[in-house]
Order: sequence, then C-alpha cells, then structure tokens
Amino acid sequence: MKNFTLRTPTEIVFGRDIESQIGPKLKALGAKRVLVHFGGSSARSSGLLGKVEESLGNAGLGFVELGGVSPNPKVALARKGMELAKREGIDFVLAVGGGSVIDSAKAIAMGAATGRDPWEFASTGTAPDRTLPVGTVLTLAAAGSEMSNSCVLTNEETKEKRGITSETNRPVISFLNPENTFSVSKFQTGCGVVDIMMHTLERYLTPNDGETDLTDRLAEGLLIAVRDAGRRAILDPRDYEARATLMWAGSVSHNNLTECGRSRLFPVHKIEHEFSALHDEIAHGAGLSVLFPAWAAFILPHDVMRFAQLANRVLGVEMDFSCPERTAREGVQTLKRFFEEIEMPTHIAQLGVKPSEYELLAENAMKTAGGPVKSHMPLGKEELLEIFRLAE
Amino acid sequence: MKNFTLRTPTEIVFGRDIESQIGPKLKALGAKRVLVHFGGSSARSSGLLGKVEESLGNAGLGFVELGGVSPNPKVALARKGMELAKREGIDFVLAVGGGSVIDSAKAIAMGAATGRDPWEFASTGTAPDRTLPVGTVLTLAAAGSEMSNSCVLTNEETKEKRGITSETNRPVISFLNPENTFSVSKFQTGCGVVDIMMHTLERYLTPNDGETDLTDRLAEGLLIAVRDAGRRAILDPRDYEARATLMWAGSVSHNNLTECGRSRLFPVHKIEHEFSALHDEIAHGAGLSVLFPAWAAFILPHDVMRFAQLANRVLGVEMDFSCPERTAREGVQTLKRFFEEIEMPTHIAQLGVKPSEYELLAENAMKTAGGPVKSHMPLGKEELLEIFRLAE
Repeated sequence: MKNFTLRTPTEIVFGRDIESQIGPKLKALGAKRVLVHFGGSSARSSGLLGKVEESLGNAGLGFVELGGVSPNPKVALARKGMELAKREGIDFVLAVGGGSVIDSAKAIAMGAATGRDPWEFASTGTAPDRTLPVGTVLTLAAAGSEMSNSCVLTNEETKEKRGITSETNRPVISFLNPENTFSVSKFQTGCGVVDIMMHTLERYLTPNDGETDLTDRLAEGLLIAVRDAGRRAILDPRDYEARATLMWAGSVSHNNLTECGRSRLFPVHKIEHEFSALHDEIAHGAGLSVLFPAWAAFILPHDVMRFAQLANRVLGVEMDFSCPERTAREGVQTLKRFFEEIEMPTHIAQLGVKPSEYELLAENAMKTAGGPVKSHMPLGKEELLEIFRLAE
Repeated sequence: MKNFTLRTPTEIVFGRDIESQIGPKLKALGAKRVLVHFGGSSARSSGLLGKVEESLGNAGLGFVELGGVSPNPKVALARKGMELAKREGIDFVLAVGGGSVIDSAKAIAMGAATGRDPWEFASTGTAPDRTLPVGTVLTLAAAGSEMSNSCVLTNEETKEKRGITSETNRPVISFLNPENTFSVSKFQTGCGVVDIMMHTLERYLTPNDGETDLTDRLAEGLLIAVRDAGRRAILDPRDYEARATLMWAGSVSHNNLTECGRSRLFPVHKIEHEFSALHDEIAHGAGLSVLFPAWAAFILPHDVMRFAQLANRVLGVEMDFSCPERTAREGVQTLKRFFEEIEMPTHIAQLGVKPSEYELLAENAMKTAGGPVKSHMPLGKEELLEIFRLAE
C-alpha cells in the first residue's frame, strides 16, 4: 500500500427530523448571515426549504436565497452567487440540494472568500487556501460532494467541465435526512447508485498499489450494500433503510476512505465528464453506466486478479481457478446486468452520442488530461475510440 | 437504524518514513511548545523519540519530555503532566506510544487547559468543553485512541478505572507508521487484534438497532481484514502490509464509523475494565479475549440471527437454516478458536482471576455502571456470575 493522508472533518448529522438542528448547528459554527443555495422549485414545493429557513430564523440567523442551479453546475451562476455573497455580507454558504448545488456552493464560497473568479480555480485545478464555510442539506444520494474535497464546474461558453480538488473544499457540516430523497425519480436514483459505486470502483481498480486489505474490504462492503439498497430503493422509493444506506454510502464512497493506500486516477469519470460537457442533457451517472463496463472490458487483461477479486467478493461470481479472466469478465457482465436491472443505460447510443462524435470526445478527453488519460495503460486516442466502440 | 452524528476530524498521516513531517505539521497547527509524552525506555532505544524530537527541533518548536506512562494509565502521572504543562507553557501534547500514552496525554491536555483535576472528569464521565490539542505518534495497533473521542484513566488509590467520552477528546493529528509496530511482542500483538475486533464487535452486537446495512458491511469487512492480518503479523512481525492493516483498522474500529446508526453499550469492555482495575497486570486485550466468548454464549439466544450473520459473513460458518442458533454458536466457537490460535487466553484462570473474586468483580461492575450492566438484557450480579462461570 502507498502512504496516505486522510482528514474528513465534515460533521455528519444523519436521520429523520434533523432539519430543526440546522439553525443551532450553524450558529454554533459561527454563522451570522447565510446564503441558502438551491436548484429548482422542488426545494420549495417539497417543504424542505421552508424547514431550513424556519430553523435558521429561529436561531436568529439572517439569510438570502439563490436558486437556479442546474445539473452540471455552471460557472455563470457561481459568479452571480459570489457577487451576491459579497454584497450581502454572507459568512456561510448552505447548499440545499444534490451534488450540483453543493459544487456550485463550493465555487461561490471560494470566489466570495478570495474575490477571484471561480473558473480561475477550475481551469487550473487549484483551489485557494481559504474559502467561506460550506454546509449542505442533501436531497440526492450520488455525488458525495457533501463530504468530499472536490467539486466540478462547467463553463457553458467553452463547453469545458473541470474539477477542483482541495482539502479546503470539504463542507464543515452536512445534514442527511434519507426522507428528503424519497421523491427522487427512479432514473435519478439509478444514476446515484451508479455514481456512488463508481466513486469506490475507480479507487478500487487502480494499478500497482500492492496490498490494501482493509481498504479493499471496506470498499467491497460498501459496494455490496449499495447494490442491495439500490435494488430496494428502485422497487420502493419510500424504503427508509434503503434510502439511508444509499445516502450514507454516497458520502463514505467519496470522502477518500475507500482510497486509503491506493492511487487516484478516475479515468472513467474523466472520460464521462467530456460526454456531459458536450451534451448537457447526459446525466453523469448514466454516462458512467455506459462507459464503465466498456472501460473495464478493455482494461481487465492488465489486472485480471483484481477484477476477479471484485467479481468474486462483491458480485457473487464463483472463482474459476482454471481461468481467472473468465471470473473477471463475468464480474463486469454481472455489474452491467445490474445497471440494466436498475434501468440504467449501458449502450452509448442510449446517451444520444453518435459515432461521428467519438473523435471529438477522445480529443477533448486528452486535451483536458494534457495527454493520454491515465489508467492501467495510457489511454490515447486509439484506446479511447476502442472503449467507445466497446460501449456500443 | 438510529439517527446519528459523526465527526472524525483527526488528520491521519500514514505510512513509512513519515516522522520528518511531525514538526512541520505541528507547526502548521499552531504549536509552539510541545509536551512529548511517552511510556518506557523503548521509545528512546528504538530511535523513534529521537526522530520525533529531531523533527520538532528542525521545525523550530520547543519541547519538554514526560515519560513513564504504564499500561492502564494512572491519574497520578496525568496530574504531574498537567502541572508540568502549565509550568512550561505547553500548547500541544504529543503522545508517542500506544493507547495508554495517548489516554494519559488526553487527560493532561484536559487538565492543563482547564486547571481542573483530570480525575474529576473521569469520575463523572464528563469532559470539559476545551482542551489542549493532542497529537499522537502511534506505536501499538490496539486501542484506537489515536482517532477516538474517548480515554480511560485508572485511580491507583481507589482501584477504579473510568472512561471519558467527548468530541473534544479527539486528537487533531495522528502519525501512523506501521514499521513502528514491528517490535511489538506476539502477546501484545494478539491483545491488539482482540481489542480492535472488540471495538467493532461491541458496536455490531447491540440489541434493537434495526437495519444498518452499510455499517454492518463495513464492520464485517474490517473484522475479516483484522483476522487475516492478525494471523500474518503473529507469524511474521515484520510483515508491513499486515501491520499496516492492523494499525489503520485500530483507528477505524474505534472512530465510530462502525457505530453509525447503532447503539453504544460496550458491556464486555465495561466488565473487563473491572478485571484490569483489580489486577493491574491483566492486559485489556487478554481480558476481552476471555470475556467475549462467555458473554456471547450467554447473550446469543437474545439475538440469534445477528450472531448467525456474524458467523456466516465474517467467520466463514455456513448458515444452518434448520437451526440458526447452531450457526450462531459455531461462530462464537470459531472466534474463540481464532483467539487461541493467536495465543490469547480464553479461560478466566489464565488471567490469574480466582473464583473467590467473582463476587467482587460483579459488584464492582455494577457499582461502576450504577446498576446492572446494559446489554441485550440487564446484566445484574447473577448474570455476571454466570458469564464468569462460562469463561472458566
């Protein structure tokens, strides 16, 4: 295993009826004037925004609202939020929503604390050393941004999508009530399940990391729990225990616990980001669902035993000792069938991506990566095109 | 699952050759004058203390030393450390050692920050709202105090052993180099393996917590990893990967991750504390190794399916669908055989405890608990005596 550092300071407040704790907790953290950041009208119509603002008001905290975050959050709105925060004397940014809202809140917090344009950080991938404190009230189990050190921004003008990873980026507090995800659609639930699994799978399927037995076992346990809860939540969206497992797993899967001692490469995420940057309508989880099985089929010969371990321990595939590659391939197929079972796409055409766009997507991925995308082997244009063909 | 809060802010710096980071990291945390707290002479003779102090000196930090911590750390030394810290203007307490040294450091930090006697906190179980920052350089994978919110102190005069649990009690930073555990004896390694497993087992085997699937899977993965690494470290004390798994598992097993959504009762720890309070020579892990199988055999009928889950998922016992209790009991026996395999005691006489002491031990446990010890049923005197007899 590799040396590592880990710090996960985000306070997690988890469970039913926790919204009344928001005001007192933020007050204890020193907040005085809060920017309440959210997406569409459902935050209000569900009653959640009302509960949040009631709790803030009861604690004597002032607040201003900024809604309108869309999936693949845009730098334009973050700029607007940053100006609003400066003008209103905001000292705490509270995201009420899913990963896009939280990522937008992180960008606003960076911009407001430094006076610098958020895209400056995104385009260079470097975060400032200070930011406003960010809190979250989560409504979607998926991105893990509520506990992670990263955020992703999209520049609509240049059609670029870029990530910022920095320890200053971790929210100080996150309120996780699984009931707030009961109304998430079957499709978005499926996208979340895939995204959560991928955050751990991308860390699990890295090359040359040697033995990381505890990290492996935790990762495998998380993947099993998410698969089982995913099935349940798709069948019954009001299954509290299943929603709770997905919600907590979303945080744990991306807070770096399943990375300890391993590398961070994230090739499938990097490739997928080009898909949703080019086609804003592509849901991140859906893109991953299409690309992962293809990437895995392509990469698997470089690390057969690792893929066989995944197949055997997580996906219930019996080890074929005479041909471990058969086990490994059956594991990828089993996962692909699971994605299909929860009604996620597994063919590139289902994303609306045409073969004529493959070249551009491959070039964009290499441009963003500054060369071939790093994986078990460098993924240059030829390799990326092969992966796209395997995803057909 | 129950509602929960979780905050694990301790920065973990893990791996080989990390000692040179100690000075710079403490400086970045604002330390100016450090109390270096340790146990016996091995901290110096191993060269570790020299490396730590060299790093502090290179970073321009002043320090004073206080050694002499013994197993089951005594309040007398903590009082001495507290006076020393005040006299020397200490602003950071750095524990170099295992759980006892860290617990002593936590007590010193509380006393120095408040000017109040550490036993005051221990005897009432309430921590102050402020403390000096504590860091750790770990040399023993066992207690998990390097990331936990708790510490345990012993009062030699009254032969009482008491715990303090508070979020202010978590170290701000812990340096974990598995090589620093290569010299840990076979016996102490075994004690550590049992203690680590018990920190998760006590959280796993709680009554009436409903479904906690993710927490279960993480707990089960940790237990499997510790069992496998424990075997390896006993066979080859210089097996880096096995030592790394034990060291990281020690932290994760007691930082509350495996408690999320579940209760905290810790009956076996509570009973064992009376054993090592009465007999200072009883190693905590050895006491647990004797008491857990007996407690489990006694409690198991109250929650057969939970013990069967443990047996099946962690201990490789095939589920007996016609008689789940058989599965559950075979699981406890399998774990007991594992403890014996790593040369841990499983009979009460091996601890030097005589049947004539059973009554006193039971009475002390109830005195500390302020009544019967809480478990799946209240463990009053009669039940505790039965558990001691089952441990014979």
